[in-house]
Amino acid sequence: MKLLNETILKIEKIDNSLSGETQKRLDNLTKPQGSLGRLEDLARQIVEITKTKNPKLTHKVIFTMAGDHGVVANNVSAFPKEVTPQMVYNFLNGGAGINVLAKHVGARVVVVDMGVACDLKNNPALIIKKVNYGTRDMTRGPAMSKDEAIKSIENGIEVFKGELPNGIDIVGTGDMGIGNTTPSSAIVSAITGRRVEEVTGRGTGIDDKTLASKIAAIKEALKVNKPNPKDGIDILSKVGGFEIGGLTGVILAAAAHRIPVVIDGFISGAAALIAYTLEPKIKDYMIAAHCSVEQGHKCALAFLGLKPVLDLNLRLGEGTGAALAMNIIEAGTKILNEMATFESAGVSEKGE
Amino acid sequence: MKLLNETILKIEKIDNSLSGETQKRLDNLTKPQGSLGRLEDLARQIVEITKTKNPKLTHKVIFTMAGDHGVVANNVSAFPKEVTPQMVYNFLNGGAGINVLAKHVGARVVVVDMGVACDLKNNPALIIKKVNYGTRDMTRGPAMSKDEAIKSIENGIEVFKGELPNGIDIVGTGDMGIGNTTPSSAIVSAITGRRVEEVTGRGTGIDDKTLASKIAAIKEALKVNKPNPKDGIDILSKVGGFEIGGLTGVILAAAAHRIPVVIDGFISGAAALIAYTLEPKIKDYMIAAHCSVEQGHKCALAFLGLKPVLDLNLRLGEGTGAALAMNIIEAGTKILNEMATFESAGVSEKGE
Repeated sequence: MKLLNETILKIEKIDNSLSGETQKRLDNLTKPQGSLGRLEDLARQIVEITKTKNPKLTHKVIFTMAGDHGVVANNVSAFPKEVTPQMVYNFLNGGAGINVLAKHVGARVVVVDMGVACDLKNNPALIIKKVNYGTRDMTRGPAMSKDEAIKSIENGIEVFKGELPNGIDIVGTGDMGIGNTTPSSAIVSAITGRRVEEVTGRGTGIDDKTLASKIAAIKEALKVNKPNPKDGIDILSKVGGFEIGGLTGVILAAAAHRIPVVIDGFISGAAALIAYTLEPKIKDYMIAAHCSVEQGHKCALAFLGLKPVLDLNLRLGEGTGAALAMNIIEAGTKILNEMATFESAGVSEKGE
Repeated sequence: MKLLNETILKIEKIDNSLSGETQKRLDNLTKPQGSLGRLEDLARQIVEITKTKNPKLTHKVIFTMAGDHGVVANNVSAFPKEVTPQMVYNFLNGGAGINVLAKHVGARVVVVDMGVACDLKNNPALIIKKVNYGTRDMTRGPAMSKDEAIKSIENGIEVFKGELPNGIDIVGTGDMGIGNTTPSSAIVSAITGRRVEEVTGRGTGIDDKTLASKIAAIKEALKVNKPNPKDGIDILSKVGGFEIGGLTGVILAAAAHRIPVVIDGFISGAAALIAYTLEPKIKDYMIAAHCSVEQGHKCALAFLGLKPVLDLNLRLGEGTGAALAMNIIEAGTKILNEMATFESAGVSEKGE
């Protein structure tokens, strides 16, 4: 609990002291004022988060965290749970969607075992921070103990800190875990107060029957465990997952170091909600990458007041949306740093 | 007219013969089927356009075409018209928004004088295809002669063909021309049949009074010239612009060579509409980069049935939205080319 508390205490409220000056600089660039829309907003936000006038997003890091879920015993997913470790190996071999997209945008992927249900083969690129061999079935009691919930968040913080010496200018969150839209829906319902049906989607592509079991499992888990909507640790322990806790830790740690965090999709959104219950100031450090197909994601973003950068019908997770959004965010910072001003380019200003 | 006719005749209807096979390949990649949403759609579209199973978008080219507009005499723009040549120099010096964003995504910018109202200084990177020194005031008669309209399109085709030996895998359109949202609104109104008020926005940021003059000028131009909504050449000559004609030529030429075209914003959308009246098959070669702040852009895209890739509140033009969208489109092709399959990665499939 000490590392978690220290991290939370380090998160500062973002002030807008550099905002006016930054907008003035953007307005002096050779373009009509405000004409680069969201790129300008993103550039300003990165300046405010990093307290740096000319932020460069050279080191882009995506933390892809994996864990298994006891709730899969209730027929909630289209894929068998052995896919979780298989996909971790795929990440390590560079064959997954996140590998391709991270490479495309010049980001690196940090792969973490937060709680896969088997022992993974040693690999120098794999970080083992296993809290346990998958969560317990949340329909029959808490998914994990309170200590495990805290440990999963603190393990996430440690992963972030371990990566810091390699350079981190912007963070993306990513997840892998068969069944993990189920705890994510439970978390979103618990925190936002939305009905389970409103926040539960088809995940990897389940049929109507499986969707019905999934909704029933989430309702049962919330009924059995009664998580306290104001207490992120309580929610994480009762209806969460180890990779979700790990991502919560990454989000908190990034903010504590004034590093912007790009929230990927639905599972990352659930982790962001838990981080928000622990420290509401976190919100201003987060950028929503995209609008997931998973309907609960929209509810999470609305609750946090975040507007997604992209809307590409994605529902893969792994950090794929975060990778693409990072490229747009970096474009915004380059506009601020690299464009000519009216004066330097000898271009007449509006109405002169 | 010969070059234009030849080019139009070369444009083939896109068949979907590779579509099923491509989707099957996408479905064999290590991700739930369809979970990369728009990226998969874009990959399929690039395969169909290029008739290539593993298309690579290495050579990304943005054609940024400049022209002046006689209609600026009617108080329609916030910026003085000397900004057109000043911005061309800015493009050549690498200081404009399009330079920064093209560099960011690995695209090159081809800068063309299609009809700037003065002689520009020689520069090896500037292509001079000037049709005339700006258009005439369209509120008093046709903006250009019919011959000039054809020449502007054919000049665009020639620019494209001249660039082809340097490699072009995907094209982006871009524009520069003080006052050019005014002819674009006139074109969109003429072709889609929408009211002038519906398709006219604030361009570079005009006030209410200037917006009223702009709407009045467009209405007057349409009343005086009565362009035929089915005849792109007639519309271009009466209420168009030289850079708009040039972009129409680029769009047609790209399709004739089975190269995908990313349509930037409002002015490019007007050029796309003109290309569409000349050859409706063109539609399947076009990808709409983004949803511009200019309200007429939405009407143009709806008319063409195109769904924008991005929605970032942009209204700069120059090809800036096209550059950012190219990066997303390239990501789609890399997914197709670089991801592991279930078999190669040893990952279990759905419901196995």
